[in-house]
Formats: sequence, structure tokens, C-alpha cells
Amino acid sequence: MRVGIAGCGLIGGSLALALRAGHQVTAYDPAGTGDIPSAKRVEDLLSSDVVVVATPLDAVVPTLRGLAAHSGATVLMDVGSLKRDVNAFAASAPETARIVGGHPMAGTTERGYPAARADLFRDRPFFLVPTTRSDERSMAVAGDLARAVGAIPTVVSAAEHDRIVAVLSGLPLLVARALARVGADVADLAGPGFRDATRLAKTPPELADALLHGNATEIRAALAKLRTALDEAERAL
Amino acid sequence: MRVGIAGCGLIGGSLALALRAGHQVTAYDPAGTGDIPSAKRVEDLLSSDVVVVATPLDAVVPTLRGLAAHSGATVLMDVGSLKRDVNAFAASAPETARIVGGHPMAGTTERGYPAARADLFRDRPFFLVPTTRSDERSMAVAGDLARAVGAIPTVVSAAEHDRIVAVLSGLPLLVARALARVGADVADLAGPGFRDATRLAKTPPELADALLHGNATEIRAALAKLRTALDEAERAL
Repeated sequence: MRVGIAGCGLIGGSLALALRAGHQVTAYDPAGTGDIPSAKRVEDLLSSDVVVVATPLDAVVPTLRGLAAHSGATVLMDVGSLKRDVNAFAASAPETARIVGGHPMAGTTERGYPAARADLFRDRPFFLVPTTRSDERSMAVAGDLARAVGAIPTVVSAAEHDRIVAVLSGLPLLVARALARVGADVADLAGPGFRDATRLAKTPPELADALLHGNATEIRAALAKLRTALDEAERAL
Repeated sequence: MRVGIAGCGLIGGSLALALRAGHQVTAYDPAGTGDIPSAKRVEDLLSSDVVVVATPLDAVVPTLRGLAAHSGATVLMDVGSLKRDVNAFAASAPETARIVGGHPMAGTTERGYPAARADLFRDRPFFLVPTTRSDERSMAVAGDLARAVGAIPTVVSAAEHDRIVAVLSGLPLLVARALARVGADVADLAGPGFRDATRLAKTPPELADALLHGNATEIRAALAKLRTALDEAERAL
């Protein structure tokens, strides 16, 4: 498979490292692509079978829009952490475009190509979100790519995806930040329990803000459930 | 130094393993003391220079009470996670008794001697709480013991200790349990972020309950601060 990767940071770089043994991988990133063969322009990636958009979250839809205008048979797949906007964009994309939403459930609080690792996705769930611009072939390509990086493809709707991510990523991030704030004056005395509980507070701020603000409705719903659980825990003290 | 250890679980066992190279260590535990030389009765430990009470939290004061009646010059030191009750007991103990509260900020969600490790306390804070039955010598012995296991002794009042522990242990435990509950239906999809954020929910229930119920007032105060921080985070979404 010829794979183009637009954005060669932690996720794009890790995909490239995981795929390059068995596939022909080209990447584009204005900040450089490390060891990965580089395209001059993002459009040059469209000669691949699939282009994976692995830019920062706020650039995902603009990048997809630029590519979808002339992507032909090339499958476009993003790997951003939220899927509703990608789904909405796909509905308005050229009818010939083939677009699948993707999201591997893996990451670190580090970022950028230097933190990329070929085994980042091994045995991790890899969400695949079919859009109105997905077909059997593009879903199969996306599934093959997910398996090729060692992950477990899991098909889910955009709405359900964003609800899951609110519970598993957004809420824990927001809670970790709140815990870190409450414990700021004694954090130097903390053991591994508090450190683990607050590790997500170190998520790079731009990524954190995109995850939180872009999914505010679902995170509010998850936070309401957390408050109920905390109230019950307090009554049981 | 001759060290007696009453209770040879994760903490007592790890103290014994850390101390046995340079000190004469004897332990007592009705469930057995693994590789550690064993005393027949807990009272037999009083021939040591210091007896460390490392029983489950609810047995700490009863064990101290039994030993303090005839502890002579032997320093008694507990290593439980809460210090107010120990402090209150010490005030009512025989005037000749020498009692220091201790609490190493280390642990795992595993328990028992099989999980014990000689390096558990390395570079960790080790709280020392002076009581009305502490004197210069008993504090020095407690400090020497903390340093001998690789920890960093830190003197603190019982009230301040329990406040710190509410923020660093009780609150994160309560929050981890609430997060785990909210995410229960999707936890099999979770990445390392959610898993770290909910790891403390696996704390053994008896230990968790003792930590929470025994420090309810301070944990309520910490929870009120967390709610404020969560409210602010929600407004910023």
C-alpha cells in the first residue's frame, strides 16, 4: 500500500514508523518529517492509495477540504481525536471523495516526531467512523491500515465516538487538571497514586484545549455523571 | 539498630527488606513473615530498639496500646496512613512510653508481603509526626529509620498530615472511583490516560475504606475545592 501522511508529529510519525517496513510511506510536514521520506507539498501525497491526515485537530477539516477537491480514488482518512466535524465536512465534500474518520486510542503527554514510536498503536483500539463519503473499499483500506500498525479496528458512529472520547479522554483530562490545582501546594510530597491521577494535566495545552472545547456538550454530560458519583461517594464517607 | 516490625504486609515487609542488610530485623505477623526472622508474639518485639507498627490501619492504635503498656525505652512508631488517632492515643499513653507517628508516602495497589520490595521507599517522603510522647531520642531514631530505608524524613503535625493525605490520597482515590464508574461501559476501549486516571480505584477496599472514612472531614474539604475547580473548568469549556 502507498500511504501518504499529512502531519508527522507523534501520531503521524508513529504511523509512519509502524508502516514503513511493509508499505511505501511518504509524509508531509512543514516542520520536517524526521527519517520519513518527505513530499514537497501536501497535494503530492494524493498519488498514494490512502492519505492519513494527522495534523493538529484544528487543521484536520481544512486539510481534508484542500485534499478532497482533487483526491480522485485516493482514500482520505483523518486520525484526530474528535469525529463530529469530520463527519459533517464529509457530508459536504465532493461526491467522488472517499473519506473515513479514524482515531487510534493511543498517545502520550509528549508530542512531536521525536516522541513517535512504531509500537504506539500495538493492541490499542483504532476507531473507524464511516461517513457519507465512505464506501466498502475505503472502509477496508482504513481497516487494513489500522491492523497494519498493530491496532484493533473498531467501527463506531461519529456521535458515539465523541461521547466515548468525552468519557475516556476529555473528562479525565479536566479532572486531572482540577486535582492538580487542588494539590498544587503539596504536590512535591505526592506518591505514585497522585502522580498517576494527575498525569493527564500535563497534556500539551493546545491539544487539551482542542479536546475540551471541541467536545464541550459531551464533556458537560459526562461531568454531570461524575458529579453524581462524587455526591454519592461523599454521602458514603 | 534492632528493629521489630509488627505486621509484615506490603509496608512492613518492604521496611524489613530495606533494613535487613544493615540492621537486626525481627517481624511478627499472624499470617507469616516470609523471609524475615519471626517473633512468636508481638510483645517479643519489645526487646528491639524500635518497634514499627505496620498493621492494617484499624489495628494500629490497639497494637500501640498493647505495646505501650510495657515498652520501656523501646521507641514505638506506626506507619499508618492517618495520624490524628495515633496522636490522640499517644496523649493518653503511659508517660514513659515513647511514640512517634510515621507515614512513608509510598505504596502500590497490590498488598501483602509478596508485593513487598526493598526499594519501595527510595527517595519518597516519610512523614514523621511528633506526639506528646515523642522526645529528641525517639524522633532521632525515627529519622534514622526513615533514612535507612532510603526515604526522606519530613516532620509534620498530625492535623497537617491528615490534610495533606486527604488531598494526595483520599481525594484522588474517591475521584478515581467516580471516574471508573462513569466510564465503566467503555473502559475496555480506554487508553493509558484513562487507565492511569482510574488506577487508584483498584486500591484494596479495606484500605480504601479506612483511608476515606477515617479522614472524612478533611476529604470533604478537599472535595469542596475540587468541585470549585471543576465548576471553573466547565465554565471555560
